[in-house]
Amino acid sequence: MSVSESVHWAGLLQGIVDDLAHERGQGHVATYIPPLANVDPNKLGIALALPSGQVFFAGDAAERFSIQSISKLFTLTLALPLDSEGLWKRVGREPSGSRFNSLVQLESERGIPRNPFINAGALVVTDVILDHLDDAKLSVLDLVRRLSGSNDIAYDLAVAQGEQATGDRNKAMAWFIRSFGNLRNSPDAVLDAYFHHCALSMSCIELAKAGVFLANGGLDAQGRRVMSLQQSKYVNALMLTCGTYDAAGEFAYRVGLAAKSGVGGGILAVLPGRFSVCVWSPGLGPTGNSLLGMKALTLLTERSGSSMF
Amino acid sequence: MSVSESVHWAGLLQGIVDDLAHERGQGHVATYIPPLANVDPNKLGIALALPSGQVFFAGDAAERFSIQSISKLFTLTLALPLDSEGLWKRVGREPSGSRFNSLVQLESERGIPRNPFINAGALVVTDVILDHLDDAKLSVLDLVRRLSGSNDIAYDLAVAQGEQATGDRNKAMAWFIRSFGNLRNSPDAVLDAYFHHCALSMSCIELAKAGVFLANGGLDAQGRRVMSLQQSKYVNALMLTCGTYDAAGEFAYRVGLAAKSGVGGGILAVLPGRFSVCVWSPGLGPTGNSLLGMKALTLLTERSGSSMF
Amino acid sequence: MSVSESVHWAGLLQGIVDDLAHERGQGHVATYIPPLANVDPNKLGIALALPSGQVFFAGDAAERFSIQSISKLFTLTLALPLDSEGLWKRVGREPSGSRFNSLVQLESERGIPRNPFINAGALVVTDVILDHLDDAKLSVLDLVRRLSGSNDIAYDLAVAQGEQATGDRNKAMAWFIRSFGNLRNSPDAVLDAYFHHCALSMSCIELAKAGVFLANGGLDAQGRRVMSLQQSKYVNALMLTCGTYDAAGEFAYRVGLAAKSGVGGGILAVLPGRFSVCVWSPGLGPTGNSLLGMKALTLLTERSGSSMF
Amino acid sequence: MSVSESVHWAGLLQGIVDDLAHERGQGHVATYIPPLANVDPNKLGIALALPSGQVFFAGDAAERFSIQSISKLFTLTLALPLDSEGLWKRVGREPSGSRFNSLVQLESERGIPRNPFINAGALVVTDVILDHLDDAKLSVLDLVRRLSGSNDIAYDLAVAQGEQATGDRNKAMAWFIRSFGNLRNSPDAVLDAYFHHCALSMSCIELAKAGVFLANGGLDAQGRRVMSLQQSKYVNALMLTCGTYDAAGEFAYRVGLAAKSGVGGGILAVLPGRFSVCVWSPGLGPTGNSLLGMKALTLLTERSGSSMF
Repeated sequence: MSVSESVHWAGLLQGIVDDLAHERGQGHVATYIPPLANVDPNKLGIALALPSGQVFFAGDAAERFSIQSISKLFTLTLALPLDSEGLWKRVGREPSGSRFNSLVQLESERGIPRNPFINAGALVVTDVILDHLDDAKLSVLDLVRRLSGSNDIAYDLAVAQGEQATGDRNKAMAWFIRSFGNLRNSPDAVLDAYFHHCALSMSCIELAKAGVFLANGGLDAQGRRVMSLQQSKYVNALMLTCGTYDAAGEFAYRVGLAAKSGVGGGILAVLPGRFSVCVWSPGLGPTGNSLLGMKALTLLTERSGSSMF
Repeated sequence: MSVSESVHWAGLLQGIVDDLAHERGQGHVATYIPPLANVDPNKLGIALALPSGQVFFAGDAAERFSIQSISKLFTLTLALPLDSEGLWKRVGREPSGSRFNSLVQLESERGIPRNPFINAGALVVTDVILDHLDDAKLSVLDLVRRLSGSNDIAYDLAVAQGEQATGDRNKAMAWFIRSFGNLRNSPDAVLDAYFHHCALSMSCIELAKAGVFLANGGLDAQGRRVMSLQQSKYVNALMLTCGTYDAAGEFAYRVGLAAKSGVGGGILAVLPGRFSVCVWSPGLGPTGNSLLGMKALTLLTERSGSSMF
Repeated sequence: MSVSESVHWAGLLQGIVDDLAHERGQGHVATYIPPLANVDPNKLGIALALPSGQVFFAGDAAERFSIQSISKLFTLTLALPLDSEGLWKRVGREPSGSRFNSLVQLESERGIPRNPFINAGALVVTDVILDHLDDAKLSVLDLVRRLSGSNDIAYDLAVAQGEQATGDRNKAMAWFIRSFGNLRNSPDAVLDAYFHHCALSMSCIELAKAGVFLANGGLDAQGRRVMSLQQSKYVNALMLTCGTYDAAGEFAYRVGLAAKSGVGGGILAVLPGRFSVCVWSPGLGPTGNSLLGMKALTLLTERSGSSMF
Repeated sequence: MSVSESVHWAGLLQGIVDDLAHERGQGHVATYIPPLANVDPNKLGIALALPSGQVFFAGDAAERFSIQSISKLFTLTLALPLDSEGLWKRVGREPSGSRFNSLVQLESERGIPRNPFINAGALVVTDVILDHLDDAKLSVLDLVRRLSGSNDIAYDLAVAQGEQATGDRNKAMAWFIRSFGNLRNSPDAVLDAYFHHCALSMSCIELAKAGVFLANGGLDAQGRRVMSLQQSKYVNALMLTCGTYDAAGEFAYRVGLAAKSGVGGGILAVLPGRFSVCVWSPGLGPTGNSLLGMKALTLLTERSGSSMF
């Protein structure tokens, strides 16, 4: 598990991008909204951040993309210090064993989502944010800007509108959760914030920087505390067990990092104590995770000998 | 995450046992068969093994107990090198999100158990063993004897008979799996072996030694290869995501080790690259895992700074 | 099964009301909205209509109450002649085996409700009406006024508002059905009409008259065709198998009539070829059907020898 | 609903057989055991019995076939008078909404089958018989011989062996029910009887005669009481709501008779107060009911004007 400090990250990342060059374009790009469907499927970027503040990258690592469900990590990061105890009464912390947007489990478990990384869970987390902060859209934007050091990170409004226009199932979910008393704010307000969160545009470099606190016991690269050590361990464990839809097991044994993925093709992964890494390639595999992204991370952990297992 | 080699394991383990002394007897001992119900609820033992061969222990670590579902780790360890490819076609590798003995998922997923650590999965793993070896009882016994270096490890026949007598649901499961064509040997033969596996009696010291290969890339303390490095990573990942019934998430964020638990009150856990550890205390908590066992492991990772996260 | 024409209906109905007098007030009145909670639990009325136009009644048979789910019968009656073929592609005709407002089955059957008498089915039926008619509220009102001959039947707006205010689960259902493409109009429009339909106020006499066409092969008491003979047989069969929530079986063997019940305590029942009957008593039993209503209908079929079975 | 006594049944039945002649062979014959797979798919027979003792028939009505699940009607007929109260505590009376052999509902409803006409329910009914009678095979044989007046009715042992050899799912079900404490006799004994019941060989004529008591308030054609009037109403209601797998609704609105079908292609149906009718054609439709059998019964009720609805 230990990672030699002498790893030449820059060369390693470049080697991975080069070795996967001929596989670019594989998988299926998400098509349910035009802004996602129109993304160039040949993109491939990777960036790795160390707690020291150093960042290494290769390929299309500076290009912004729709982070989609990776935003669930940031809404949780915002909500957890606000009301950790209250939050865990309203959202579980176990793998769901079901699809990310199933309503079945929600019915049998009376409106308590299994974990914060399925859609239902992120809706409740957003509701918790709205309980404490005036503006759930602005506050998440502030958070990712501060964590990544990029003050021009913004919501892609075309994506947010697309999510709203195609989000019938998420609307069903919000009303369903509310019917069990587990949504306190109006579903419309929660959904509006949620759809915006999914529409954040960030680059691999920005995401790797934004996630490095999880590799550093809750402290960001400037030494500012984002959450407690204990909370950062919780979040890492949640990423490992629940962060990659219904491929958590496969992800763990193949890649061996704690990770959160999005249908935009991004994956933000963490090796606790060592580094955060973000990879982006739009083509998705059968489990809804970036196909080349998973390959790139597998190569990374193999070549650097840095699996958690 | 790194573990200082200067950890004084012996003192640390004794401190944990001492600090938990006043909590002995908490939780509910499994009562479905007399040999389990009659166990002294005040027992508490812990043992830790290093890849170097060193073993540290405290409390009732030398006393044998019924390892129950921890045996699923050993049947998998035996089956994986026999037919890794075939096995993963017949058993999944994802968390189930359901109780360990539910038949619901089995019906919707047409007889393919979610992972090798739920009962249904272990039945199929046992079937794989029977496909390749003459005697699934003897071969598992041989394996744990060799791994632990204790040649007198044996099946507790009273426990095996109790399992058989109360195992209606496991019988239902075996016939159900067979109805989907995923059991090749007779359910009676598979169940007989399975019930015996659950009835293995081993001590914390023996279990820690038997599991140390998972902390050592697949090599046991004598340097013999038990499985490939890749396979050992798979097994560790499976333990982390699926090893503790429906408390995998809680176990991960609270304890931070890959682990497999049993209703006899034992938990065998691994920190890849560092150590294996086994704790035993018969009283179970609400998730069916040893209550004091989880506390002991939590103290261990906190005090040694050795969580995976 | 045959009903002697010499049955003295007036006396029989009065006898039932008298014999149940001491049981008035039993069961639990629906309380989820104030207008229902405030109903006098001691009410008991019964009315029976013959295809000839004759109507017999006893007790509080002339008092209007909230017909709630009995309205599902009238929305189906309106929609069926509009687009019978299209309707049955979008709604099933089988018992659900689940609660009337479950979303589980809807998920596994991809947005096709099991039958028109569960909430999800009635939402799709309302959507069909909106596909063909300008005003789904007015057209249903017209229908029940015409069928019952009472031109002042109206929606109880306090009830409609209450349904809207507490209807989170129905809203979840509408969005969920829409997410499968089985709702063409806006969920808000469908829900608004649906909540009004549930808020119809009618008396036992009006309901018995409105339902007599189902006892008369599709012709009302004035000889006007409401639906085809074949369609009336379909509707009767649906009432018998699906009309009383998850008590269809119990209702069939105990009462032996085709029936549709509502949480307002009304039950409209039909003996094909003979009569329609409506009973009202607000106290509900464990299956959500009027407790005294079921008793009254059981007495009716026993004393008149008129069970379908 | 009334049936003119002047119906010329003999001619009507012959007309149906003639009109369906060119459709013989349609559907898919059950193939899971050789004796069923080898049946001539072109067979078509129909027989109708009146309470008076008169029997009319046409086509292959005198040829015996495997009655399969129609036997569930006879095991219920035997068990109901033995312990009506106890039986209904152990088996429900509602439609299941699921496939006839699903284990899902059984798990959520803790081993209480939904009704006596799904496999799980018939296993419990058989268990009730074994609680009261020495020989569940012989007693059912006696019953159908007595009801039909054919003393040479027998079990087809090749079919019974085939059921046993392919009955893994039924075995799973029996053990599963037992795991909830709802099977008192050994699963092997219950299954052996159950597999034999399914293997009864009877003709349309024999089945129509055996079922006529359900059209006659519980009295057979010789005036002997088979069950109480109330019980016969229960059984008819159960047939209507639960007798034709997951096509109860379709059957009710299309055919309009209470019916119990089997995968051997037989359907035994009842119009309470009027007649029992049995049709046989081996080819099954998508719901597992005889395709031509349903057509024949639909023609029968249309041409005789004898639907229950």
